[in-house]
Amino acid sequence: MRTRPLKVALLGCGVVGSEVARIMTTHADDLTARIGAPVELAGIAVRRPEKVRAGIPAELITTDATALVKRGDIDVVIEVIGGIEPARGLITTAFEHGASVVSANKALVAADGAALHAAAEKHSADLYYEAAVAGAIPLVRPLRESLAGDKVNRVLGIVNGTTNFILDKMDTTGAGYSEALDEATALGYAEADPTADVEGFDAAAKAAILAGIAFHTRVTMDDVHREGLTEVTAADIASAKRMGCTVKLLAICERAADGASVTARVHPAMIPLTHPLASVREAYNAVFVEAEAAGQLMFYGPGAGGSPTASAVLGDLVAVCRNKLAGATGPGESAYTALPVSPMGEVVTRYHISLDVADKPGVLAQVATVFAEHGVSIDTVRQQGKGGGTSHSNVVESGGEADLVVVTHRATDAALSSTVGALRELDTVRGVVSIMRVEGE
Amino acid sequence: MRTRPLKVALLGCGVVGSEVARIMTTHADDLTARIGAPVELAGIAVRRPEKVRAGIPAELITTDATALVKRGDIDVVIEVIGGIEPARGLITTAFEHGASVVSANKALVAADGAALHAAAEKHSADLYYEAAVAGAIPLVRPLRESLAGDKVNRVLGIVNGTTNFILDKMDTTGAGYSEALDEATALGYAEADPTADVEGFDAAAKAAILAGIAFHTRVTMDDVHREGLTEVTAADIASAKRMGCTVKLLAICERAADGASVTARVHPAMIPLTHPLASVREAYNAVFVEAEAAGQLMFYGPGAGGSPTASAVLGDLVAVCRNKLAGATGPGESAYTALPVSPMGEVVTRYHISLDVADKPGVLAQVATVFAEHGVSIDTVRQQGKGGGTSHSNVVESGGEADLVVVTHRATDAALSSTVGALRELDTVRGVVSIMRVEGE
Repeated sequence: MRTRPLKVALLGCGVVGSEVARIMTTHADDLTARIGAPVELAGIAVRRPEKVRAGIPAELITTDATALVKRGDIDVVIEVIGGIEPARGLITTAFEHGASVVSANKALVAADGAALHAAAEKHSADLYYEAAVAGAIPLVRPLRESLAGDKVNRVLGIVNGTTNFILDKMDTTGAGYSEALDEATALGYAEADPTADVEGFDAAAKAAILAGIAFHTRVTMDDVHREGLTEVTAADIASAKRMGCTVKLLAICERAADGASVTARVHPAMIPLTHPLASVREAYNAVFVEAEAAGQLMFYGPGAGGSPTASAVLGDLVAVCRNKLAGATGPGESAYTALPVSPMGEVVTRYHISLDVADKPGVLAQVATVFAEHGVSIDTVRQQGKGGGTSHSNVVESGGEADLVVVTHRATDAALSSTVGALRELDTVRGVVSIMRVEGE
Repeated sequence: MRTRPLKVALLGCGVVGSEVARIMTTHADDLTARIGAPVELAGIAVRRPEKVRAGIPAELITTDATALVKRGDIDVVIEVIGGIEPARGLITTAFEHGASVVSANKALVAADGAALHAAAEKHSADLYYEAAVAGAIPLVRPLRESLAGDKVNRVLGIVNGTTNFILDKMDTTGAGYSEALDEATALGYAEADPTADVEGFDAAAKAAILAGIAFHTRVTMDDVHREGLTEVTAADIASAKRMGCTVKLLAICERAADGASVTARVHPAMIPLTHPLASVREAYNAVFVEAEAAGQLMFYGPGAGGSPTASAVLGDLVAVCRNKLAGATGPGESAYTALPVSPMGEVVTRYHISLDVADKPGVLAQVATVFAEHGVSIDTVRQQGKGGGTSHSNVVESGGEADLVVVTHRATDAALSSTVGALRELDTVRGVVSIMRVEGE
């Protein structure tokens, strides 16, 4: 075993970074045995050096991250700063100075993964980022390596814990969105500004990364269709329940049936209660993968948090250090299929549409005609009076107001959009209350 | 990219082998792109050369497996024969002739993994066996690599599809064991001789492999306490339901609380319906992993079958080929902790004991005294009359016969065994109907 230590620079010492530093210290012997050489924390770049950091030697702290990655004796740089800059510049500089990089930065990898991978390859360095997608859940490695001999056709995941917590609360307590968000904020599951989570930006970055790895092509954040969950109502959740479903914010990456293109999207969707993703509670994450030979796999665990994310970072650290010792690099970017990413309009799925209609004879015929004219086939129709009564299958047309719920067969998003546009033009349709996709069937 | 192909020898061409050959042919371009060089199937060793094998070139078929692995131009040997010999001899010969090995052979790895790893290391070759544990579900790689920076404390898994199918049938239909086994056999889930599955041998081999990898120590098949499910009755399942539980055949690998030893066992156990493993249906497998930093992870998917197993084999093939091209080897055996495996008597868990007792005053006091004398603390007691009536908490002591169900707090298996021995001596206890462990709480 080599006794000269591998030197590690840590960029960022917040929730994740401090946990990485702690485990590197307390589990040093295990890491040494698993890597085949000791690893030494050689420097920690922080913004606020004055902050008290228990257990972290003060002499390691620096505010000059650039100087740290330029030192020349650093073998591995761990980047847990997040965001695009200065992370991108520091990672690039690290590669130029001979270091490999372990990153937890989903936003950066989703925005600029190709350039980062190219820089790593140019300098014969590794770029690993298991922690960027769903915290401690092994996903990047299974998709990149375990399924390297298979063909992945679909990835369906709950990859944002904040939104899953909110939807789970709405589902179990009947609370509205604002109320559930307040609880998530109070319990620390949602940040003061929850935009990145509730508008789906965080999940979209993960969807881009997963789609790229799963389909061996390039997918960036901009390719991902994104809808948040701010408009999901208690009525939507109740309507999902009536269908034997629950509502989840899903990241969905699919290979088209002809194999010639892929799609990636993030939006709330109804999934059947019998689907393994339906039982993912609270802030847990889970990703369902469909591969040609392997069949249906699911990976489940905590999707965020200091310790789980640190676990993923350190798993990558061990791999990257082992590669360094062997004079090799791990699997880099695999984008050889170069499949185009189709726009949302070409996505094919089912839809649950809730309409506020005049409750009088002929309404159903009008609505059904509009669906037919746009080539969208109806699976079931359900009318419920404003008083909450429900009649299945046959719409009771008795005057007054009613909600008409239409569930379609599979249709393109473009066809559905045209249908909804035409429905809005009908005098008897007072409003389109909600449109939600139905997945996982 | 290298154009000279890597040569692969396939040992065995049954359900898994034929699927490996098929995918290597149909997905050759993908494999080439992912490996960085073409792979060529250079020979297939079979026992029955006369068998018709669609899509497999006849000139590749040989009955001389030894000559095939000795050819000298073989880069990777894929072993899907199963069993100890001739697989062990062929793998050793392969290493001696410069090949790396991908195996799906759980029995061999569990029995003799240390010697095989040593042979691989001696010849700077790889030994990969993702397919040996739970088919397509990535487990070996996540435990060995993704969690390499973490400390795994517990692995709890459903790793045998046949027995899960049987227990699932018993649970959902109320069928007895024989009836459920017959259905499993009819549907092809159980073999004509189901011993390896129903007596827990298959699961025990997987438990040994999982424990070794998870705890970085050596665990062989002989170290694993093993109980099959042949004695599980419809009454046990019904009793589990009354407790809000279901019965699963679990492989359980645990690090002792003091960290100084490990245990590995396979037996039927009750788990709460709220546990993620409880909802694993039919022949699916799932493994629940508890790690210090990562928290609770679960991996779910098909645990057997030609295609899923081939997917795992081919993922390993890609990794081993990449290592070959880089002149490196992947992570080998990691057994540095050298933790002893404690006997079953030291395992600590909870127990559900069903007793056939005389239904008269004083029985409960006698039974409770026996538990207390052996240091086993009782959590709940429930009596149910032979007519099926149940009274909770308080035992109705009314003469005649009754079943007395005792659920204990955590105790060692040794203490529980002594308790049960003493209970059998009581005049008022006519029989110990069943003893089942309660896990996953």
